Amino acid sequence: MNDWRENVRRVVPYVPGEQPDQAGMIKLNTNENPYPPAPGVLKALKQFDPDRLRLYPDPSAAVLVEALAEYYRVKPSQVFVGVGSDDVLAMAFLTFFNSDRPILFPDITYSFYDVWAEEFRIPYRQVPLDEHFQIVPEDYFCENGGVIFPNPNAPTGKELSLAAIERVIRNNPDVVVIVDEAYVDFGAETSLPLLEKYENLLVVQTFSKSRAMAGMRIGFCIGNEELISYLNDVKYSFNSYTMDQLTLALGTEAVKDDDYFKKMTGRIIETREWAKKVLAQLGFVFEDSKANFIFASHRTVPAKKIYQALREQHIYVRYFEKPRIDNYLRITVGTREQMEKMFEFLRNWLKGEQ
Amino acid sequence: MNDWRENVRRVVPYVPGEQPDQAGMIKLNTNENPYPPAPGVLKALKQFDPDRLRLYPDPSAAVLVEALAEYYRVKPSQVFVGVGSDDVLAMAFLTFFNSDRPILFPDITYSFYDVWAEEFRIPYRQVPLDEHFQIVPEDYFCENGGVIFPNPNAPTGKELSLAAIERVIRNNPDVVVIVDEAYVDFGAETSLPLLEKYENLLVVQTFSKSRAMAGMRIGFCIGNEELISYLNDVKYSFNSYTMDQLTLALGTEAVKDDDYFKKMTGRIIETREWAKKVLAQLGFVFEDSKANFIFASHRTVPAKKIYQALREQHIYVRYFEKPRIDNYLRITVGTREQMEKMFEFLRNWLKGEQ
Repeated sequence: MNDWRENVRRVVPYVPGEQPDQAGMIKLNTNENPYPPAPGVLKALKQFDPDRLRLYPDPSAAVLVEALAEYYRVKPSQVFVGVGSDDVLAMAFLTFFNSDRPILFPDITYSFYDVWAEEFRIPYRQVPLDEHFQIVPEDYFCENGGVIFPNPNAPTGKELSLAAIERVIRNNPDVVVIVDEAYVDFGAETSLPLLEKYENLLVVQTFSKSRAMAGMRIGFCIGNEELISYLNDVKYSFNSYTMDQLTLALGTEAVKDDDYFKKMTGRIIETREWAKKVLAQLGFVFEDSKANFIFASHRTVPAKKIYQALREQHIYVRYFEKPRIDNYLRITVGTREQMEKMFEFLRNWLKGEQ
Repeated sequence: MNDWRENVRRVVPYVPGEQPDQAGMIKLNTNENPYPPAPGVLKALKQFDPDRLRLYPDPSAAVLVEALAEYYRVKPSQVFVGVGSDDVLAMAFLTFFNSDRPILFPDITYSFYDVWAEEFRIPYRQVPLDEHFQIVPEDYFCENGGVIFPNPNAPTGKELSLAAIERVIRNNPDVVVIVDEAYVDFGAETSLPLLEKYENLLVVQTFSKSRAMAGMRIGFCIGNEELISYLNDVKYSFNSYTMDQLTLALGTEAVKDDDYFKKMTGRIIETREWAKKVLAQLGFVFEDSKANFIFASHRTVPAKKIYQALREQHIYVRYFEKPRIDNYLRITVGTREQMEKMFEFLRNWLKGEQ
């Protein structure tokens, strides 16, 4: 006899990262922005006409798409928006990684790529980073079903040069190459200018980090019009109305205030560069980060022990119990004050451990 | 030579329904609620702490899940929430309709079922409604990969009795049966009590109609804990953070105010029953509707012609150019005032057409 369970799609359950919510905690574990979104966002929130809540949003999300197109100087038909970059990436995997050949991505990278590949039954191969956690372009010059990597990479924070990225794209004309730029606004170079030369490139970004709106779930990607139209076809056949009325109103305001955006990302970069110096003084080693986090290992004290000691102080950083990186901490760059408190604790505590 | 286009998933593009946005229009085309959401929702909007926007939302959406569990007297582990019921249904199709046998649904029904089946490559068979647009339970007593139908059905508004629904579920123990109750709060009987007897039943509902929050994108489903856990596994592997901070805050308030909810749905039901009488006087025929819309045909004037005449007056109703239903209009039940204006126009205009 049959059982309804036989027809159920079983996936290895993905467990989302911890989201502690305690008064007085220092939360440096999920790469959120320590500063609030642009003042225009708060104003739009206060002025929002609540009667709009009863009406379906514009399924084309035109107001947000147009603001992004204007900001990035592309056509609106080149922009696709979704419920966080995870939604955009999931739709892109479904749309573009549709061959029998394995897609390629780094062995140390955003932890969702293999989860989507498993969920959508896409064959994949994880390509090892070199010993400095760098992507080696040549490793991607082989038959494959698509390529994806973040730039800067996560959780390492390492940037890949535009020249190296271009070599990956140029050597993969038969597949779509996705550059996941979740952290690009903190000092790495965007691949957007390459769109003029390569029709198989898709650039994905998010409002969750540099635009301080992780709570609103907005991601987007930019590519040539044909790529975006395929993506829209799949998206509209999945869920036509994803971007709610408030998200559209608030997200649009976040894009419009470029001065605030540059000022706040600049402040985070400044804190990161200072934090690198302090971390080095405290005995940490790390590759150079261009993201809003630093991926660091201590010369003598195991990462897991530091992670737990910080946790007891209600200071949350991210620790991955995974091969090659289980002696590293991913520390989000918070405010200068938050970082000082963490360093103050570490300065004393590490003395007792060394 | 290969081309990246060869690896692209091509789907027949789904075109979302029109969302006109004109001052003074009468919008009766997408079954929105004519009344605003509960006062608590508006209060939550005004009191929302904007600093939360920079922080990731709770991926388990616990506050909303718990409010729904309390309201429907089930365990929180029996509740799943998503970005509108379309998101919930898409995830359910992906999770539960995973066999080689065709899934079954009515030939006249929610227009997204065949779209998801196509998108996820699920075999399907559309089962004809009888001549009164009624679902015939016996037609679903055959080998299949799953069953889904709305109750009341869309766009017909016809209710299926709980006894008939139970026969469909009892005769399909090997597959998951989904009852899509998007419109159930306007007078049909919910299948939720059947959950105690059948572990293969999933009941889907939405905030878009009876809770007046189409603009916020909230849907949910209730089933036994095992079904919900499979659904969560797939969902967390797709997009962990779907419900944004504002959606969680506002959605929770909508569930809490049961008095307002009952008062407003009662008012819509009252307007619908009155509207049925007027439509009959105007020469329309229709099956009895238990939804917030009426699916009507005129005795002498073609539906398409009426649709266009109304449209010229900026009165929008829904017309489907599809087999069997191309002489019907789906008219959303608006406020009494909106309906009166439409009837006033029709009363005069129809005289000239007959």
